[in-house]
Amino acid sequence: MTHIRNAWYVLGWDSEVDTAPLARTICGVPVVAWRKLDRSVVAMRDACPHRLLPLSMGIKEGDSIRCRYHGLKIGADGVAEEMPIKTDPVNRRVCTETFAVEERHRFVWIWVGDRALADPALIPDLWPCSTPGWAFDGGYYPIKCDYRLVIDNLMDLTHETYVHAGSIGQPELMETPIETRVEGDKVFVTRWMAGVDAPPFWSMALKQTGKVDRWQICEFIAPSAVIIDVGVAPLGAGATLADHDRGVRGFVIDVMTPETETTSHYFWGMARNFQTDDPGFTARFKNGQGGVFLEDVEILEAQQRSIDANPALKLRAYNIDEGGVRVRRIIDRLMTQVPAKTTSVETAL
Amino acid sequence: MTHIRNAWYVLGWDSEVDTAPLARTICGVPVVAWRKLDRSVVAMRDACPHRLLPLSMGIKEGDSIRCRYHGLKIGADGVAEEMPIKTDPVNRRVCTETFAVEERHRFVWIWVGDRALADPALIPDLWPCSTPGWAFDGGYYPIKCDYRLVIDNLMDLTHETYVHAGSIGQPELMETPIETRVEGDKVFVTRWMAGVDAPPFWSMALKQTGKVDRWQICEFIAPSAVIIDVGVAPLGAGATLADHDRGVRGFVIDVMTPETETTSHYFWGMARNFQTDDPGFTARFKNGQGGVFLEDVEILEAQQRSIDANPALKLRAYNIDEGGVRVRRIIDRLMTQVPAKTTSVETAL
Amino acid sequence: MTHIRNAWYVLGWDSEVDTAPLARTICGVPVVAWRKLDRSVVAMRDACPHRLLPLSMGIKEGDSIRCRYHGLKIGADGVAEEMPIKTDPVNRRVCTETFAVEERHRFVWIWVGDRALADPALIPDLWPCSTPGWAFDGGYYPIKCDYRLVIDNLMDLTHETYVHAGSIGQPELMETPIETRVEGDKVFVTRWMAGVDAPPFWSMALKQTGKVDRWQICEFIAPSAVIIDVGVAPLGAGATLADHDRGVRGFVIDVMTPETETTSHYFWGMARNFQTDDPGFTARFKNGQGGVFLEDVEILEAQQRSIDANPALKLRAYNIDEGGVRVRRIIDRLMTQVPAKTTSVETAL
Repeated sequence: MTHIRNAWYVLGWDSEVDTAPLARTICGVPVVAWRKLDRSVVAMRDACPHRLLPLSMGIKEGDSIRCRYHGLKIGADGVAEEMPIKTDPVNRRVCTETFAVEERHRFVWIWVGDRALADPALIPDLWPCSTPGWAFDGGYYPIKCDYRLVIDNLMDLTHETYVHAGSIGQPELMETPIETRVEGDKVFVTRWMAGVDAPPFWSMALKQTGKVDRWQICEFIAPSAVIIDVGVAPLGAGATLADHDRGVRGFVIDVMTPETETTSHYFWGMARNFQTDDPGFTARFKNGQGGVFLEDVEILEAQQRSIDANPALKLRAYNIDEGGVRVRRIIDRLMTQVPAKTTSVETAL
Repeated sequence: MTHIRNAWYVLGWDSEVDTAPLARTICGVPVVAWRKLDRSVVAMRDACPHRLLPLSMGIKEGDSIRCRYHGLKIGADGVAEEMPIKTDPVNRRVCTETFAVEERHRFVWIWVGDRALADPALIPDLWPCSTPGWAFDGGYYPIKCDYRLVIDNLMDLTHETYVHAGSIGQPELMETPIETRVEGDKVFVTRWMAGVDAPPFWSMALKQTGKVDRWQICEFIAPSAVIIDVGVAPLGAGATLADHDRGVRGFVIDVMTPETETTSHYFWGMARNFQTDDPGFTARFKNGQGGVFLEDVEILEAQQRSIDANPALKLRAYNIDEGGVRVRRIIDRLMTQVPAKTTSVETAL
Repeated sequence: MTHIRNAWYVLGWDSEVDTAPLARTICGVPVVAWRKLDRSVVAMRDACPHRLLPLSMGIKEGDSIRCRYHGLKIGADGVAEEMPIKTDPVNRRVCTETFAVEERHRFVWIWVGDRALADPALIPDLWPCSTPGWAFDGGYYPIKCDYRLVIDNLMDLTHETYVHAGSIGQPELMETPIETRVEGDKVFVTRWMAGVDAPPFWSMALKQTGKVDRWQICEFIAPSAVIIDVGVAPLGAGATLADHDRGVRGFVIDVMTPETETTSHYFWGMARNFQTDDPGFTARFKNGQGGVFLEDVEILEAQQRSIDANPALKLRAYNIDEGGVRVRRIIDRLMTQVPAKTTSVETAL
């Protein structure tokens, strides 16, 4: 097991799920999802309870789906509505496993673990993705690696210098010390650059040149999101670590979902609080970000292949990896943790 | 094990086997077969007894084959006829395993189990494929699924409504009750439609319109054949389940051979007792049937992938699956059955 | 285990290794090699000690390589020279496993076993590849088979008749008896053809027609080289098995390196002592030899697939295989042999 079983994972972008069925394997479970006519989303195991043909190959009828093999009709609640022979009485014990889904922060989230524990309050708070005054867009890449390698990558931005040497890499980033902090199931890696020259992108965002305070704050949110608070404020505007909404600010959004032990779904994007009414900016930024993240995909897939080819070797952690190490400890703890509700029942006994 | 070991399986169409070697894996065994100059067929393990190069890569010399690696020459009986060095004395213990083969009903049959039990009388009686007054032709598809999924498919024709919605599917078929009957190692699923309108194909075959009696009788013959008796007779002609040779009649022929646990060889065709002297009809029908059966191939391969992806789930059987369930019981029984001859030897002791 | 662990294997042609990193898996170990500015070759495990990204994806800086993920810089000795953050103190225990390499006979050799045993004196003596008065060139093929199948192939040239029927095969070769001889870890298979007509190639090499003495002497040198001494001398020139440098002579060179249990690296070529100053001859011969050896690759990969598909069958040995059988015994013995140095230590205790 490489992932936390009882947790919310992103099934897809809100825009990926519509009335047509979407098939995606989540934590090893084949899932099919679709949007009902009331726009709510349902998700269930992608196998007809009769002969296991993927329901995603079926024919949508209203909010239900009819299996394309023998015509068993399954409702949005996963329960049979019509048997293969229409006149046969419906056996309502014929059903497929359904999963809790929630739509939040522009993503559809799914819980494939113990459904009784699926508390929507546990969904990672990706507020910049869904707060008025912020613009958010992004993309999706399948990636052939353990999702934790993507987290390691994001919790240590020094990789930008080499992996993104041709795009966003800047040696200066490595010269500023970082501070790592754990708060509950969150990990923060903070780099605060006081009184530096604004790089071109941020000058453009700030619409002025000159000295700025600049920050990069990587935040891991269990089970598998990393959001990176980035931006600049004019020198003297009084921006602080605790309060830095005085300049231009963005969040690099990264949410990974395990597909198998060695493959993942990678959802990425950028939320920003400047030029939010410029869809051209949004589209151009998404294109650029997509190109940069493909550089990561190439590296991470090569890393996974090398891990597989060198089974006796272990990943090592140096100073720069402190954030990643803290994250791994949290994931390891949550993977083995007895679910809260089970604990309370035992206590009651 | 997914198949009956001691049984006849189709190795290929009679037209597929000629003097050039044909390589095909049957029940996990690599086999090479060819036709001798007297047109009889021989089959043996497709590996030179010397260094295991596939004999099917070899050079035919008369009825023998010479390995293309070192030139060991193997006769049609599987025994060495010449060593790699021609002047070396032939060691007749050098041989490759041969298999019993029989040519019948337009197919070449092979027995890869215990050869002592290979009684030709056990070959499934596909008489419509080889009886004067009947025309027969068909094709071959490799299919990436357990052969039993193909049998399930054929023993329940309600799938036609959905899988073949664009071709032969008709909702009316599902409205007529079926009757399932077991006779020894055979299973029959019968649908008798008395006094219905003849569908276009059958009107054309019968050369008249009007009411007809129509039938569909699926018959499973162990180890893995399904033949479907289909046709119509004019209303009042007196056709009965026991005697319905008064109108136009055909047999859909399906014979499956396990290749591995999850891949199979699918031989299919149509035998008919009308317009038998019209090769254009034969060719057009084969084209049409091939297209319809490709629709099954797509579904069955997706079903196999879903079975593999959902290891905890089981196939379920409803009313329509009674025929398939009965077949599975027969296959399960025959898979574990002690071979008859072995039993008699033990009795003699 | 299919190979001798403590032995020198060819990593590549001398011309394949240059300042740019070369990645190649040797006996299951991912290796990266490059040439230093002084032209000497270094080889190490192809995984950054930090996060295991293949070092072969890195950036060369002088004789060192910088990992393209976080910029850890590794020296030619495998030891860290710079941490990902340049200002961090270098931890010299951060290192990657290095391997002994030697350049000899136009090949770069590597020892991935116990380094303390890597004595350069154990490198197979392929003297015709590196002796003045001889010209040598050749090529490289990856091949999907156990390297021992290539050795079997080369120790029995009767396969030429069938595998190379369209190129160099000649039935006459099989009519001359061979003699097999073991000397230590070497095996010789000798075919001496006294007073035969010179075939066209050798007439051209000798620059005269008429009767010749002709020889083919296959020599296996552990762990996995086969060199074949071939040539002709004019009848009456007094050529003998012990002394046959009076006519024209060549060595077919074959050196195989295990990549995995069922895939190998195949290095091949031809050394000759005639027309050594004709690079056109060298190039034409290499082209021709490459074509002939591709015929072997096709056969050997089919043999490996057949071995895998027929797990109950064993390779058999006839008279012609005596050379190969002797080789296998030597390999089997050396695979299990206690390394010499370990033995002496134990004796000391």
